[in-house]
Amino acid sequence: MILVNGAPSNVIAVTDRGLMYGDGVFRTLAVRGGRPLHWQRHYARLRSDCTTLGIRCPDEAVLRAELAQATRHEPDCVARLTVTRGPGQRGYAQPSPANPTTRIVMTSAPPQYPPDFAERGVAVHLCRLRLGFQPALAGIKHLNRLENVLARAEWSDAAIAEGLLLDIEGNAIEGTMSNLFIVERGALATPDLARCGVAGVTRERIIEYAGRHGIACHVTHIGCERLFEAAEVLLVNSIIGVWQVRKLMGKTWGPGTLVTRIRQWLDEEND
Amino acid sequence: MILVNGAPSNVIAVTDRGLMYGDGVFRTLAVRGGRPLHWQRHYARLRSDCTTLGIRCPDEAVLRAELAQATRHEPDCVARLTVTRGPGQRGYAQPSPANPTTRIVMTSAPPQYPPDFAERGVAVHLCRLRLGFQPALAGIKHLNRLENVLARAEWSDAAIAEGLLLDIEGNAIEGTMSNLFIVERGALATPDLARCGVAGVTRERIIEYAGRHGIACHVTHIGCERLFEAAEVLLVNSIIGVWQVRKLMGKTWGPGTLVTRIRQWLDEEND
Repeated sequence: MILVNGAPSNVIAVTDRGLMYGDGVFRTLAVRGGRPLHWQRHYARLRSDCTTLGIRCPDEAVLRAELAQATRHEPDCVARLTVTRGPGQRGYAQPSPANPTTRIVMTSAPPQYPPDFAERGVAVHLCRLRLGFQPALAGIKHLNRLENVLARAEWSDAAIAEGLLLDIEGNAIEGTMSNLFIVERGALATPDLARCGVAGVTRERIIEYAGRHGIACHVTHIGCERLFEAAEVLLVNSIIGVWQVRKLMGKTWGPGTLVTRIRQWLDEEND
Repeated sequence: MILVNGAPSNVIAVTDRGLMYGDGVFRTLAVRGGRPLHWQRHYARLRSDCTTLGIRCPDEAVLRAELAQATRHEPDCVARLTVTRGPGQRGYAQPSPANPTTRIVMTSAPPQYPPDFAERGVAVHLCRLRLGFQPALAGIKHLNRLENVLARAEWSDAAIAEGLLLDIEGNAIEGTMSNLFIVERGALATPDLARCGVAGVTRERIIEYAGRHGIACHVTHIGCERLFEAAEVLLVNSIIGVWQVRKLMGKTWGPGTLVTRIRQWLDEEND
């Protein structure tokens, strides 16, 4: 089901700046038993991203009500919330701040990944495309996603679950649709997203839960060599939870231990 | 007027990848007396940009016919052609190559700039936002335009005609909606767009005409100091033609000579 500004609709104005310039943000979240998981965190990120771009964020109650309406007959689904700067005239200059933003709530059936992916880990493609640096947009889940589109087009083998993206200096940053953690001597590390990448809610949760469970988690630069020497390499997002990387380029990893603990943390804290 | 896939319409599918991911390209061109100016060049760029992104480019005859239809009652206008990868499922993976792309032809009234801008030159804002490097997307006029949106939001004074963008290393690259040339010792130089920026049709024309008229034109890196020491600084695009920069930061420039010649070239070759 799709709601546009609260009303069932499959269409949006051609003049919407979301289409014209990718001028908007989005979140993808899991809905289970009619409950949008980690709603507070997703809304906080959406609002923060809107603020950074100078887009008026819709009220939480409005979005929450629309989410409830869209998922009423689809209690277990994936929901994507999109907020754009709304319709505008030609040209980059922004419409008046009073211009209405556009809200889109769209549901999809949960993706059916092979159970193997969670149980045994995944084979991952090392993307040739390198993420560029743009500190003004880094971390934001905005609608300018051509880098992800090009990276995802690099493989079509269904046995490859995800693509790993490096930045232009060769640091590991994230998957095309997931955030990255590595395990080193019992501690976690996750890439610094100050110059590129998307700051996901599951990444934020894991950083927080690690602290609570006495596991160090460093937000840092992770060069390619460091990645290949890690004891475990993990990919996370709101839909997949956590997958261990089993294979990347020539390298293979056996079953890890922290991946299991993290999965427990994520399962336990399904607020 | 707006045509979507050849039919009058103001809306587009919410699932269109142009909206979901900015997964598409566009061109903006001047229509005079019902004739789209420099159509061959615009189409060639559109096709080249589509090819780089792996989007099937609509046939020239189809776009040309739709442009004629959209401008029939509006013979003097600005036309924007947008081509997206078309509707898709959730996720970055591309739909089958057989998936129909989306074509949008949209007309607007020509912008009314003060005659001053062309006659006496323009005051320009030096943008704080720096363009990031992404060689895989550089030169392409794609729908991921948040950098331009953020840069354009840096000023609201109507007396400032344009914003000048540097890259993250401090090289001058372009205006938010225009390409850049400088004049040095009677020769032209324009920034290399291999790492960022949009390769416009007017830039291409000026490079070509300069060669024909025996004026050297270098495509090169242009550091900020070099820009400020230039004899003339020029901004160009398909709608404005050429504007001389009269004022940037503390620096002012008097009337130039090459700007007049370039304007003549552009006027003479309005094929």
